[in-house]
Amino acid sequence: MTDIPENFEVSAEVREALSHVRVVLKSPLYGGNVGSICRAMGNMGVQDLAIAEPRTLDLQEARMMACHASALLEARTEYPNLAAAVADCGMVIGTTARGGLYRQHARTARDWAQEILKTVGDGTRVALVFGPEDNGLNNDDLALCTHIIQIPTTDEYSSLNISQAVLICLYEIFVATDSFSPHSEKSEPAPSVLRERMFTMWRELLLEVDFMSEDKADHMMLGFRRIMARGAFTYDDVNIMMGIARQSEWALAQPRDAKSNAADEVPA
Amino acid sequence: MTDIPENFEVSAEVREALSHVRVVLKSPLYGGNVGSICRAMGNMGVQDLAIAEPRTLDLQEARMMACHASALLEARTEYPNLAAAVADCGMVIGTTARGGLYRQHARTARDWAQEILKTVGDGTRVALVFGPEDNGLNNDDLALCTHIIQIPTTDEYSSLNISQAVLICLYEIFVATDSFSPHSEKSEPAPSVLRERMFTMWRELLLEVDFMSEDKADHMMLGFRRIMARGAFTYDDVNIMMGIARQSEWALAQPRDAKSNAADEVPA
Repeated sequence: MTDIPENFEVSAEVREALSHVRVVLKSPLYGGNVGSICRAMGNMGVQDLAIAEPRTLDLQEARMMACHASALLEARTEYPNLAAAVADCGMVIGTTARGGLYRQHARTARDWAQEILKTVGDGTRVALVFGPEDNGLNNDDLALCTHIIQIPTTDEYSSLNISQAVLICLYEIFVATDSFSPHSEKSEPAPSVLRERMFTMWRELLLEVDFMSEDKADHMMLGFRRIMARGAFTYDDVNIMMGIARQSEWALAQPRDAKSNAADEVPA
Repeated sequence: MTDIPENFEVSAEVREALSHVRVVLKSPLYGGNVGSICRAMGNMGVQDLAIAEPRTLDLQEARMMACHASALLEARTEYPNLAAAVADCGMVIGTTARGGLYRQHARTARDWAQEILKTVGDGTRVALVFGPEDNGLNNDDLALCTHIIQIPTTDEYSSLNISQAVLICLYEIFVATDSFSPHSEKSEPAPSVLRERMFTMWRELLLEVDFMSEDKADHMMLGFRRIMARGAFTYDDVNIMMGIARQSEWALAQPRDAKSNAADEVPA
C-alpha cells in the first residue's frame, strides 16, 4: 500500500491567523506534559508557547514527549509572571475545571472557537492560559482573563491532564478554521444505469447458483439492493461487484476440475 | 472562594449508552500512554478498555498517568488478537492518521459521533480501535473495521499521541450526548428599568466629578451605554455598578480629610 498525498492543506491565511494564538502555561510541574503540549500545538498549527513563573523542568522528558515538535519547545518564551506573559494579548482566555464565584461566565472551547478565530484573524493576539497541574489558575490569575473556558467532562472526573486540556482547546480552534477534510473517495458515485447493469448481472448469477428461484427473485433482489444502497456506490464499487459476478459466471461454466485454476483470476 | 456544585449531571441513560463504548488498543508500547488513555476515558465517561495482542507494559507508569482512573486500568480485558477484542461489536471504528487505499472512506470523529451514540443507545457495542504508537493499524486491522476515523490536524504534523487521539474521539462522543453545560450566571439578566436607573445614577456621578459637561453628557453616555451593553447585564452586575455610583456620590459629599475612611466602605 502506498500513501496517497493529503487532500487538504492549511491555507496561508489560516496559518497567519493561528500564529497569533499563544499557549501560556503558568508554572507547569512536569516536563512530559510540556512536551505533550508542544506536540499537540504542532498537530493543530499553533507555534507560540510562553511559560509564566517557570519552575525547573525535566527538559529531556519534555523533548521526548514533544516528538517532532521539539522546535516549539526550544523556541518557548519565559516570563516572570502571568501578567507579563499576556501583556500584549487582546483576548486572554483562562481555563478551569472548577466552578465558583469567578468562573460563572465560563463557556466551552467550542462556544468561543469562532470568536477566537475572528480575533486572531484580525491580527489581535489571543492567549490561552493554563494553570499548574496541581492547583489550576487562582482568582488573581482569572482576574487577568477576559474569557473563561471549561471543557466538557463527566461530573465524576472533571480534571483533565493539562496536555489533554490544551489539545481540546487548540483542536476546537483548528476545526473551526475548516481547513481539514478527511481522505475522501477518489471514485465518483456511479450513475443509476451502471448500478442497474450490475444488479442485472447479479440477478442472473444468484439464479444460476440457486440462491433464489425465479418466483422469489424480485423479493430477494430488493434485499440485495437494500444492502448495496447503504452508502454512495462508486464506479470502483460497481466495478468490483460486476467483476465478481462476471468471474463467478465464468467459473460456473467451467468443467468441475478446472475451477481451482479459475479462482486465481478473480479480480482482487 | 468556595466551589459551587456542578450544574450538570450525566443522566443514567447516557451512562448506560456510554457503557457500550469499548476502547481497543492493539499492542500499545508505553504504559504512560495507556494510563493517560484511562484518565481520558474517566473524563469522558467511558469504562471498557481492551488490549489486543498485549506486550509487556510499564504498569507503574500507567498507574501514575491514569491518576484517579486507575480502576479502569485494573479492569482492562486482554485478547490474543484484534478480531477477538472486537468480536461482539456491531460497529468497529478504526483510527488512522495516514491516507491510502483502505482509508478513503474516513470521516472525522465529529462526523460519526451521532451515529456512534445512536448505536450504543440501542445497546449495540461499538469498538474504537487504536494501533500501536509506532505503526498504527495495518491493512488487516482495518479490514475488521466498519468505519474509519481520521482526526483533524495540520498537514505538516498529522501524527497525534495515541492518548490525545483517544481523547478527541471520546470527547466528540461525550459532547454529542449534550450532557455538559458550563457554569452559568446564577444572576438573571436585569430588566431595562433597572439598567436605566443605574445609567441615571452614573450620569449624575460623571457630571459631578466633571468627567463630562452637561452639553456633552448625552454623547458620553452613549459611549458608556455601549461599553455596558457588550454582554447580558445581570442583577448582580447592576448592583455592583449602582453600588459604585452610590458610594462615590457619598464619598464626594464628605469633607476632604474624611475621604480616606470612606474608601473602606466601597463595596468589593
